[in-house]
Amino acid sequence: MTVDYSTEYRESILIKNILLGRKSQDVLIEGNRFTRIEDKIDLSANRVVEGKGKALLPPFYNAHTHAAMSLLRGCAEDMHLTEWLRDKIWPLEAKLQGDDHYVGTRLAILEMIKSGTVFFSDMYFNVPDTIRAVEEMGIRAAIGVTFLESNGAKYIERGLRLLENLPETSSRVQITVAPHAVYTVSEDLFKRLAAMARERSLIIHTHLAETRQEVQDCIAAHGMSPVRWLDHLGLLTPNTVAAHVVHADDYELDLLRDRGVWLVHNPCSNMKLGSGVFRSADIIEKKLKVALGTDGCSSNNNLDMREEMKIASLLAKVHYGSEALKVEEVFRWATLNAARAYGLDAGEIAVGKLADALIIDLNNVRMVPSYDLLSNWVYSADSSCIDSVICDGKFLMQGGKVPGEELILEAAFKASSRLAAKNNRN
Amino acid sequence: MTVDYSTEYRESILIKNILLGRKSQDVLIEGNRFTRIEDKIDLSANRVVEGKGKALLPPFYNAHTHAAMSLLRGCAEDMHLTEWLRDKIWPLEAKLQGDDHYVGTRLAILEMIKSGTVFFSDMYFNVPDTIRAVEEMGIRAAIGVTFLESNGAKYIERGLRLLENLPETSSRVQITVAPHAVYTVSEDLFKRLAAMARERSLIIHTHLAETRQEVQDCIAAHGMSPVRWLDHLGLLTPNTVAAHVVHADDYELDLLRDRGVWLVHNPCSNMKLGSGVFRSADIIEKKLKVALGTDGCSSNNNLDMREEMKIASLLAKVHYGSEALKVEEVFRWATLNAARAYGLDAGEIAVGKLADALIIDLNNVRMVPSYDLLSNWVYSADSSCIDSVICDGKFLMQGGKVPGEELILEAAFKASSRLAAKNNRN
Repeated sequence: MTVDYSTEYRESILIKNILLGRKSQDVLIEGNRFTRIEDKIDLSANRVVEGKGKALLPPFYNAHTHAAMSLLRGCAEDMHLTEWLRDKIWPLEAKLQGDDHYVGTRLAILEMIKSGTVFFSDMYFNVPDTIRAVEEMGIRAAIGVTFLESNGAKYIERGLRLLENLPETSSRVQITVAPHAVYTVSEDLFKRLAAMARERSLIIHTHLAETRQEVQDCIAAHGMSPVRWLDHLGLLTPNTVAAHVVHADDYELDLLRDRGVWLVHNPCSNMKLGSGVFRSADIIEKKLKVALGTDGCSSNNNLDMREEMKIASLLAKVHYGSEALKVEEVFRWATLNAARAYGLDAGEIAVGKLADALIIDLNNVRMVPSYDLLSNWVYSADSSCIDSVICDGKFLMQGGKVPGEELILEAAFKASSRLAAKNNRN
Repeated sequence: MTVDYSTEYRESILIKNILLGRKSQDVLIEGNRFTRIEDKIDLSANRVVEGKGKALLPPFYNAHTHAAMSLLRGCAEDMHLTEWLRDKIWPLEAKLQGDDHYVGTRLAILEMIKSGTVFFSDMYFNVPDTIRAVEEMGIRAAIGVTFLESNGAKYIERGLRLLENLPETSSRVQITVAPHAVYTVSEDLFKRLAAMARERSLIIHTHLAETRQEVQDCIAAHGMSPVRWLDHLGLLTPNTVAAHVVHADDYELDLLRDRGVWLVHNPCSNMKLGSGVFRSADIIEKKLKVALGTDGCSSNNNLDMREEMKIASLLAKVHYGSEALKVEEVFRWATLNAARAYGLDAGEIAVGKLADALIIDLNNVRMVPSYDLLSNWVYSADSSCIDSVICDGKFLMQGGKVPGEELILEAAFKASSRLAAKNNRN
């Protein structure tokens, strides 16, 4: 059902004298691909950008989030997970109405662009509104059709119909099958979704082994842990993306590797909710496939993949020692690996790849001195270092400006004021 | 020896309609103090600033760093501590010459201002150069006269003479006595420094119980752990600031509390170097006094106190549960507590207090929605949210601009190129 509109435009961008790796290069983008990378390219392009004093880096691909939850950012903190969900998050979510999902997703996408992210894998509700926001704002997304039994049979039927008649989208958007978790989806539904994903070549995106409680409850209910249970149901395949995977034993990690499952590490969320420590060093040693994600704003509370890289590395080091989860590895998790997990021909600056990139200001104080660009990027930078963001051959941000920002914020303020007012009345 | 120049100027700044706590206020600064905070203040001031759409927050006070090490940012990563120091940091440090400390400190201060910090407690070398950089750039500092036996008798004598004849400074600068650590300072020198600090009412700033190795070595050398050893030598007083304190047992925590010692938590550094986990929840329960610090750039790799707050909270939560180290507490560690640790009448926006403040842009996407300002600030913001920085009644940054930035970066590039070239030749 996916239609590739990329042939519709052939605009070209020529970036001159920009640092790529260790040397100054000229980079040509035609349509939505990098087409030439050379010491000097002399030709006219629709747009010529001077890159002196700047570096070109692959942008971020956020492998697990709940975008519209940005509308709930900061609504409740420092609580036990159960009370936090029951008393704060769920009552607010129940009141999302009308354009709220659209407004919240646009807010999230604005933050993503400003912090250098051009793709997100979403697991939330109101897929058509999410598609609309993504298409309008020019980034990429894998949008999950989410299934929780507690949403009721009608909602599940609607999800299944959506999967049977996939909406038409640009090449920037794909639909994924997103059973929420082992504690919210029945055996039957899991099996049905696995079959549909297989038939339609869709990626399965699910939460897995996030908390100790989940493991205990799954063993009590099914006589086996979440990882083993999903394998038993045929859910673990190379087209499966499993978020969190904090509580997995050695056998289960080997199993996930052998099945080719992509793991998504969400360090901020795991730490903030006290879920536990992702086994980074063991997982690297066992050669599993890992991507990085921010999870939703409510448990983070931002969508900043740069910060997520640093915290992933620090968390690994405090548990496994200072040599664990090195700069190059965590950078790959946040870029190339996350793109690969969702089948995108992107995540690196190379001829033939999809033209996604960040232009980084090397004269930002956090990037000085310049002994090691990647080390500065992972451990020292923040969003203030990002000059411009390119996705699919188009500038989404240039010189720090995203067109339409004011309207997006205004709509978010309006929606959140209404939610807060309603919430207080309870 | 400290001279208060604050009476020399009486310039006034009136900030109109700015969010302070939960309501819009007018805030008047006269000289270097907040003098009025009211719903409406109608008078003329030297400078009137419109605060609508912005919030006023206390800035950061960085309780432990090594500022000039910013010149070594990113020079070596992901290594074992011993090799990292021996093969990378120390050879580079040995080559610092001429204006390098001054250049590195200015680079550090520029980053601090841009990330909202108006004070740092420094432990490094070349005190006169550090004073010069601080005085010129307008922030506050507690500058340590650092003692390591390995620097040789001459260096120690010079330090002692400096303490005997304290340099004249503005009220923004104080000198501290900084014995490096139990493994680099002898019993005699510790005792001598403690006596000098007592006589001159100077604060003692030292590293304490940072690594397991330090504890083991101290027990082997002195028959007791670092905390007990320093207490035995009379170093633990309400005027002592102890950085790290990762490896302390319950008895030692009680002792540190009873002696009134200030602890400095440096989560990024402790994590990056694999030093261990600060016992946040136990330390809060035992009611110790805690401030926050970034440590030096080489082990962080930035000086961003906002990021440090978030990471401190996340580290506490992953170890103690989601209710540990709440927003208000970690914010206090980074502001009011760090100011108090160094005897500053600052760290909160209140009439009579030193006029230090941040103006925060509430229309930055990371601050939206606005359910909870502090939660957004700790968990979601980054330096891009900071519009302006006020220290001692003067703007150090306004609208994101720090005067003289280009020259500071140029000097840093020049010095670091020379260091890198020298390093490669080794």
